[in-house]
Amino acid sequence: DVESSSKQHVGPPLLSVLQDLGKIQNSRDRAVTLFEWLLSPIKPADFFRDIWEKKPALIKRHNNSYYSGLFSTSEFDRILRDDNVQFGVNLDVTSYTDGKRETHNPPGRALPLVVWDYFRNGCSLRLLNPQAFSHTVWNFLSVLQELFGSMVGSNTYLTPAGTQGFAPHYDDIEAFVVQLEGKKHWRVYKPRQKSEHLPQISSVNFSDEHIGDPILETVLEAGDLLYFPRGFIHQGHCLPDAHSLHITVSSYQKHSWINLLEKVLPAALKVAAEEDVEFRKGLPLDYMDYMGVQNTDLDDQRRGIFIQKVHTLMTKLADYAPVDAAVDQKAKEFLHDCLPPVLTPAEKSHSVYGAPVTWEDGRVQDNALQIGKDTRIRILRGGIARLCSEGDSCLLYYSTDNPRVYHQEEPKSIEIDFEHVDAVEYLLHSYPQYVAVQNIPSGTLDEKITVATILFEKGLLTTKESLNVTR
Amino acid sequence: DVESSSKQHVGPPLLSVLQDLGKIQNSRDRAVTLFEWLLSPIKPADFFRDIWEKKPALIKRHNNSYYSGLFSTSEFDRILRDDNVQFGVNLDVTSYTDGKRETHNPPGRALPLVVWDYFRNGCSLRLLNPQAFSHTVWNFLSVLQELFGSMVGSNTYLTPAGTQGFAPHYDDIEAFVVQLEGKKHWRVYKPRQKSEHLPQISSVNFSDEHIGDPILETVLEAGDLLYFPRGFIHQGHCLPDAHSLHITVSSYQKHSWINLLEKVLPAALKVAAEEDVEFRKGLPLDYMDYMGVQNTDLDDQRRGIFIQKVHTLMTKLADYAPVDAAVDQKAKEFLHDCLPPVLTPAEKSHSVYGAPVTWEDGRVQDNALQIGKDTRIRILRGGIARLCSEGDSCLLYYSTDNPRVYHQEEPKSIEIDFEHVDAVEYLLHSYPQYVAVQNIPSGTLDEKITVATILFEKGLLTTKESLNVTR
Amino acid sequence: DVESSSKQHVGPPLLSVLQDLGKIQNSRDRAVTLFEWLLSPIKPADFFRDIWEKKPALIKRHNNSYYSGLFSTSEFDRILRDDNVQFGVNLDVTSYTDGKRETHNPPGRALPLVVWDYFRNGCSLRLLNPQAFSHTVWNFLSVLQELFGSMVGSNTYLTPAGTQGFAPHYDDIEAFVVQLEGKKHWRVYKPRQKSEHLPQISSVNFSDEHIGDPILETVLEAGDLLYFPRGFIHQGHCLPDAHSLHITVSSYQKHSWINLLEKVLPAALKVAAEEDVEFRKGLPLDYMDYMGVQNTDLDDQRRGIFIQKVHTLMTKLADYAPVDAAVDQKAKEFLHDCLPPVLTPAEKSHSVYGAPVTWEDGRVQDNALQIGKDTRIRILRGGIARLCSEGDSCLLYYSTDNPRVYHQEEPKSIEIDFEHVDAVEYLLHSYPQYVAVQNIPSGTLDEKITVATILFEKGLLTTKESLNVTR
Amino acid sequence: DVESSSKQHVGPPLLSVLQDLGKIQNSRDRAVTLFEWLLSPIKPADFFRDIWEKKPALIKRHNNSYYSGLFSTSEFDRILRDDNVQFGVNLDVTSYTDGKRETHNPPGRALPLVVWDYFRNGCSLRLLNPQAFSHTVWNFLSVLQELFGSMVGSNTYLTPAGTQGFAPHYDDIEAFVVQLEGKKHWRVYKPRQKSEHLPQISSVNFSDEHIGDPILETVLEAGDLLYFPRGFIHQGHCLPDAHSLHITVSSYQKHSWINLLEKVLPAALKVAAEEDVEFRKGLPLDYMDYMGVQNTDLDDQRRGIFIQKVHTLMTKLADYAPVDAAVDQKAKEFLHDCLPPVLTPAEKSHSVYGAPVTWEDGRVQDNALQIGKDTRIRILRGGIARLCSEGDSCLLYYSTDNPRVYHQEEPKSIEIDFEHVDAVEYLLHSYPQYVAVQNIPSGTLDEKITVATILFEKGLLTTKESLNVTR
Repeated sequence: DVESSSKQHVGPPLLSVLQDLGKIQNSRDRAVTLFEWLLSPIKPADFFRDIWEKKPALIKRHNNSYYSGLFSTSEFDRILRDDNVQFGVNLDVTSYTDGKRETHNPPGRALPLVVWDYFRNGCSLRLLNPQAFSHTVWNFLSVLQELFGSMVGSNTYLTPAGTQGFAPHYDDIEAFVVQLEGKKHWRVYKPRQKSEHLPQISSVNFSDEHIGDPILETVLEAGDLLYFPRGFIHQGHCLPDAHSLHITVSSYQKHSWINLLEKVLPAALKVAAEEDVEFRKGLPLDYMDYMGVQNTDLDDQRRGIFIQKVHTLMTKLADYAPVDAAVDQKAKEFLHDCLPPVLTPAEKSHSVYGAPVTWEDGRVQDNALQIGKDTRIRILRGGIARLCSEGDSCLLYYSTDNPRVYHQEEPKSIEIDFEHVDAVEYLLHSYPQYVAVQNIPSGTLDEKITVATILFEKGLLTTKESLNVTR
Repeated sequence: DVESSSKQHVGPPLLSVLQDLGKIQNSRDRAVTLFEWLLSPIKPADFFRDIWEKKPALIKRHNNSYYSGLFSTSEFDRILRDDNVQFGVNLDVTSYTDGKRETHNPPGRALPLVVWDYFRNGCSLRLLNPQAFSHTVWNFLSVLQELFGSMVGSNTYLTPAGTQGFAPHYDDIEAFVVQLEGKKHWRVYKPRQKSEHLPQISSVNFSDEHIGDPILETVLEAGDLLYFPRGFIHQGHCLPDAHSLHITVSSYQKHSWINLLEKVLPAALKVAAEEDVEFRKGLPLDYMDYMGVQNTDLDDQRRGIFIQKVHTLMTKLADYAPVDAAVDQKAKEFLHDCLPPVLTPAEKSHSVYGAPVTWEDGRVQDNALQIGKDTRIRILRGGIARLCSEGDSCLLYYSTDNPRVYHQEEPKSIEIDFEHVDAVEYLLHSYPQYVAVQNIPSGTLDEKITVATILFEKGLLTTKESLNVTR
Repeated sequence: DVESSSKQHVGPPLLSVLQDLGKIQNSRDRAVTLFEWLLSPIKPADFFRDIWEKKPALIKRHNNSYYSGLFSTSEFDRILRDDNVQFGVNLDVTSYTDGKRETHNPPGRALPLVVWDYFRNGCSLRLLNPQAFSHTVWNFLSVLQELFGSMVGSNTYLTPAGTQGFAPHYDDIEAFVVQLEGKKHWRVYKPRQKSEHLPQISSVNFSDEHIGDPILETVLEAGDLLYFPRGFIHQGHCLPDAHSLHITVSSYQKHSWINLLEKVLPAALKVAAEEDVEFRKGLPLDYMDYMGVQNTDLDDQRRGIFIQKVHTLMTKLADYAPVDAAVDQKAKEFLHDCLPPVLTPAEKSHSVYGAPVTWEDGRVQDNALQIGKDTRIRILRGGIARLCSEGDSCLLYYSTDNPRVYHQEEPKSIEIDFEHVDAVEYLLHSYPQYVAVQNIPSGTLDEKITVATILFEKGLLTTKESLNVTR
Repeated sequence: DVESSSKQHVGPPLLSVLQDLGKIQNSRDRAVTLFEWLLSPIKPADFFRDIWEKKPALIKRHNNSYYSGLFSTSEFDRILRDDNVQFGVNLDVTSYTDGKRETHNPPGRALPLVVWDYFRNGCSLRLLNPQAFSHTVWNFLSVLQELFGSMVGSNTYLTPAGTQGFAPHYDDIEAFVVQLEGKKHWRVYKPRQKSEHLPQISSVNFSDEHIGDPILETVLEAGDLLYFPRGFIHQGHCLPDAHSLHITVSSYQKHSWINLLEKVLPAALKVAAEEDVEFRKGLPLDYMDYMGVQNTDLDDQRRGIFIQKVHTLMTKLADYAPVDAAVDQKAKEFLHDCLPPVLTPAEKSHSVYGAPVTWEDGRVQDNALQIGKDTRIRILRGGIARLCSEGDSCLLYYSTDNPRVYHQEEPKSIEIDFEHVDAVEYLLHSYPQYVAVQNIPSGTLDEKITVATILFEKGLLTTKESLNVTR
């Protein structure tokens, strides 16, 4: 699909978009709103119905400031200067010349003098996970992840004029190429064969003769967006007259039905083994005589019966599938993958993060509201926590304490006492409504206050009222 | 079931039974014949139709020498003297007194003076895997394993008069209790609940109050046999007037449909992921909002659709199940579990094991037949080898080089060149017929001879002709 | 020793001290100057001669602002707010009441509301490695580490009025207790026995009855300093009228002759085994008959001869000790332990960190000096790098890329080509003198420029001239 | 040295030598006697004084039956037939032709037909650790190990006429080449350089041009013996007219002073660190400025002082060396390396191994002597057990339960209660004298009987009286 009229497409600047998000009560609505801005003028509903996982889409805006504020080469330069960017860990120096793809990473820290020297010599610079360095990218991705329900990642690519940094290849993620500066010539190709539609793993580097003709060819300019599903081969190069900077926003890596089934099947087998004696009955005495690869050509009716039996059991297995428990396993992994949320000023000042308890004048000053029966509370964001049973206990997994660097720390969770489980569940379901503590429909008032206090102190709740009381 | 008339049941002595087995051409028929003797007068066909995995069976023979020659306390005494039997590894010293089950193993080697001292003090002696020490038990079990297609194991139990060595419990195997000396009072109880029918794992020790009333109670005397399926609780104790020695022959541990499905499912998922894009499509954007344990009570029609989708995919998965490949995985494990065969004199003298190549008079004497185009050959035994493809190569797994001690060594296999695969398969299928090398229907004559020689030198073939030629 | 007159001791404020350090050319002199300020009016030379590792020292200054600017409770409050401080990892909540020492760390992030609640309930707060959060502490310690040649660490301790947070104990480090706010009553005790003088490991918690009478008892007030060697037992508690904040600066953990010998001995043994056949000769045939613990009381003259032989070989071993190589192993570990240096503005602007190469106006702007034959250079700081041979190659270990968190990353090094080793060594020895590149006394001019450029790009050199040239 | 007159050297046949050993009371004397027979006519005392670890020795006997009974090609053939000999594990098939050394091991079991085929094609056959298969070799080596106090191992080498199986090389063991059948031409060369005298590790394969001229060249015939120390290069090849079979008996692998020092030094360092504050004092502040490889050429007097200090501490360290404890560590390892003893009939019938407790006539028959106050006992063999303290407990390590295969099982030990330690030590020292239980000089009579019974039941004692009593 190509959204491309010759007229300029205008939208609000990103920073005001992000600021306005704070006025939206429900964090899922925020995600949709931001995605709408990203894809505008394509509507999200149309996009997910017609394009997503199906075909590439191109949005030409003739407005090179549309995405301004998201990321820039100047910010990249600042990051090199101020942060500990490591070659090979955070930054790749690459080239693709005469069909040869090379990586030029030296060891150690990437300082501007060295990095810019590579650039002037024609190398592309791929910054991995810029969200770890850029506050805006972090904010941007952490909002979007609530829409996708799957980790949203990114890389930025800075390419010198007249060069190409990567060979043609396909990825294992849905890709949104957001052109930030300059321009780049792109070619997108169909998956080579059926088994490479929506693949689970990325491809090797291809050469031009193996990928056919492009189905889409365009020069992406600042303010434009190019989307293509996983499996679509692509390559981009800079024209002689301009460098290019883009950020690729990605999602849906290993987030297919197959990945859910990987959780469902062993669990279903366990349930079936416990509940259904048919699964526990012994195999036929003589099955190895007619089954097995060496017997595939055997004309023996016992083969049909045996295969039918396996078929029947597998079909029956579906009845034992603990789908919800399997979804929770996926949800837990998602919460581990998540970026922590970037709090709005209001969220901060109505949560433990901004509680007015502080050291002043040589002593602790505490002007914070105590959580009481009338305090109205809600979960901080819709998608930051999930209740999962694990063995004999119940854990609340959450993303707010995650580091900005992917999987740098273990999954975060707190154990929830059984008498508190209903209250926590109630709060999770009530979002985005505020609930007065006393109206939590389970437990004594003391228990309600305890639950609310625990979640509040972990940073998982906001209060409706200001926390700031003067005593 | 109880086979029990007052008249004495007579049968041939074991050693002559074993000797006569050698006259039977097909090793699978040998297994059936031996099992027939074990269960006589119950017919194997009746047994597997009416009793196996369903209910206990008792055979009273009034003939205490019926099983003579299989194992005896005298042989146990000899084993302690001659072999390195280790407490805790090969021998357990146990007692069950006043409802308390204890193990008394000291560390180190079990020497007769110490072992018999425990026995005189009322302890039971369980010899684990006597097949590692007794040639007859080894022979006996190695024949039976071809009937069951699943590892056949054994333990012997020697119990002093007036004592009990084990608490009531159930096992995870089909058990044949063969009374060898003295007598023992047995009680067998139904599985306590549906989920304990044909269980995958053995029970803890029970106490009498939790197991109900026995459904079978008897005094087993030398020459008698008691069978019960896995999951049936049982306990036995010696009467004051006689010690007891029995051997329990067992099979079908983790050999149920569930154990096959554990191999089938991951393989099916892999095939489906490659072949069917439906499995690779992404999960719905919002599924975590209505799925998961915290949402089980949610009244949301998307739940039904989601669950139905999982159901559909699981059913579809059955179409991708590589059943034969999964059976080969089971077969490979079985060949690793197997005891090596005990060769008959004829098998030995017609195989590489007895080839008349030897050192005599200061030089190598070689009177062995060379494998040639006319040599008639067959696989040594029906169940000793299996052709499995593994990645890009084809391996022949086999049991003949296994040690007598379970899993003491790695699985044994040889790689088969692709041009030899058909020939090997042909030989496997031809059993028990002999085939002249030149009649193998694939490859050049040289290749036929090569295949035959490789298998012969590995001990996997016997020749019809005598190997002994005088040159 | 007690430095304590009733008159106020005045000194320059810390921030101006730190600023003035930049004017000192040699980083080792900077370290001495800073240490002098820390201990004033005690002179470093006197301190190391008379007090260090020997006895406690107390400096009373009657000047509660002497150490102002190093750290404060307000900064601690800010850190809790802005940084990801984790209970149990970065912060310990402790109490010592009625002889009972407890730790109260909940899991997860330490937010002010929760932390201050513990504090108001009488708990002490120990911030581990504040140098990871406080720029000034980082600067302070990174300068001092050049004096000690051993990692300099720190913790801060905030204690509520009227409480005690820790039981009496001794540590395995030399401790400088710097009182920052409020006051604290301290008692210091002699090591309990000879083997606890200068111990290698810290003690368990003691109770009062096992530690005798204090040899030093004082109320430390803001601006005072208390030093005691490792092995000296100590405890401190707050008086009812004031909280206390102090920072303990520590060094010389596992930095004794024994720790060097642990490196020397295996290396010496290896050399001796190669060079001296006496060490390779076989043991006496019968030595186990008279040697061994079971033979210690044996009156056998062969014992004396054998022991004498071991003695002789051990003495001889000293001749083979590769002391310099062992020191390099210690040096490598030290460089891994080190904090990275905090650069002065001048250091920054004369090194790669401040090189005027940047992205501006849509392109790379490069106004940086090229390293050439006339460029005068020197190592950035005296103690940041060390040349060590490792197997067949030569590595330059360095501390400048270390993270602020102890051992969060692997040791940093670059391989130095053999033809460059002399040049690097020359530069290391020339410090603090600047050297013109062409005056490096080894290699061709090209090689000299290459070495200088490599070290410069790694951030290990400063230039005498400004890097900023306008082209 | 060469023992070589033209007259035939006669000695008793091995089996009668071994039988006569049983009449010698002290197992250490047995070892000497057997070694005397091995080396005859060279006297052991002369050998160890003049030859051992110094130079090769050759004994020509003109008596090709001198070593008959130790091992033969016929026995090798029997082993291939009866035992599970594995290529690559127990048997190596090798060749050395035109300067090229090759190994030809196929996978799996080595059956005679295949093995003899290699041999007829000119390959050498090295049987590793024949003691695992040959009872006589086991007996032979297990006796000798008491002389050497270090593991005694062996390999046999069967070489076809006119071939060579191995390249010139040196080993890390003292080697006794015992020619059993046929003859072989040997060349022995001096170590190439000082550092290869008595080396700790074996050499690579050499070629002729790098090893100089032989210092000994001979044709070894059946009944002859060739000794050479570790480090002496050697090669042997068969003449065209005869095959060769020899067994190489080896000892003193990693059994040098250096290997003891490896145990002594860390232990000495630990003691010194505890007892001597000099070792715990801190290193000089500035030592890294003048020490380290980059400072070796520095003219700084502090270097001399520092090196002298290390020297002094290393010398002092010798005073803290816990030599006996280190010897025990070596002894423990030796007991783990040991072959188990082969019991003489008398040893068997006077120990628990032959105790007349048995199952007969349907019950336990016990005619065994009970250990009582008058029973006279002694340790089974001099070198089979050792008392070592380990942490807070005292363990008796012993070799009698070792498997015949090297390190196939963990070291064997039993814990000895503290009140029994003196009694055990007394028994160890009393060997070869018998001691009446009541005369053990420590503990109550009950304790004495308990100790004696524990050791007896473990097989570590023999009684003077017959165990066989009729009750």
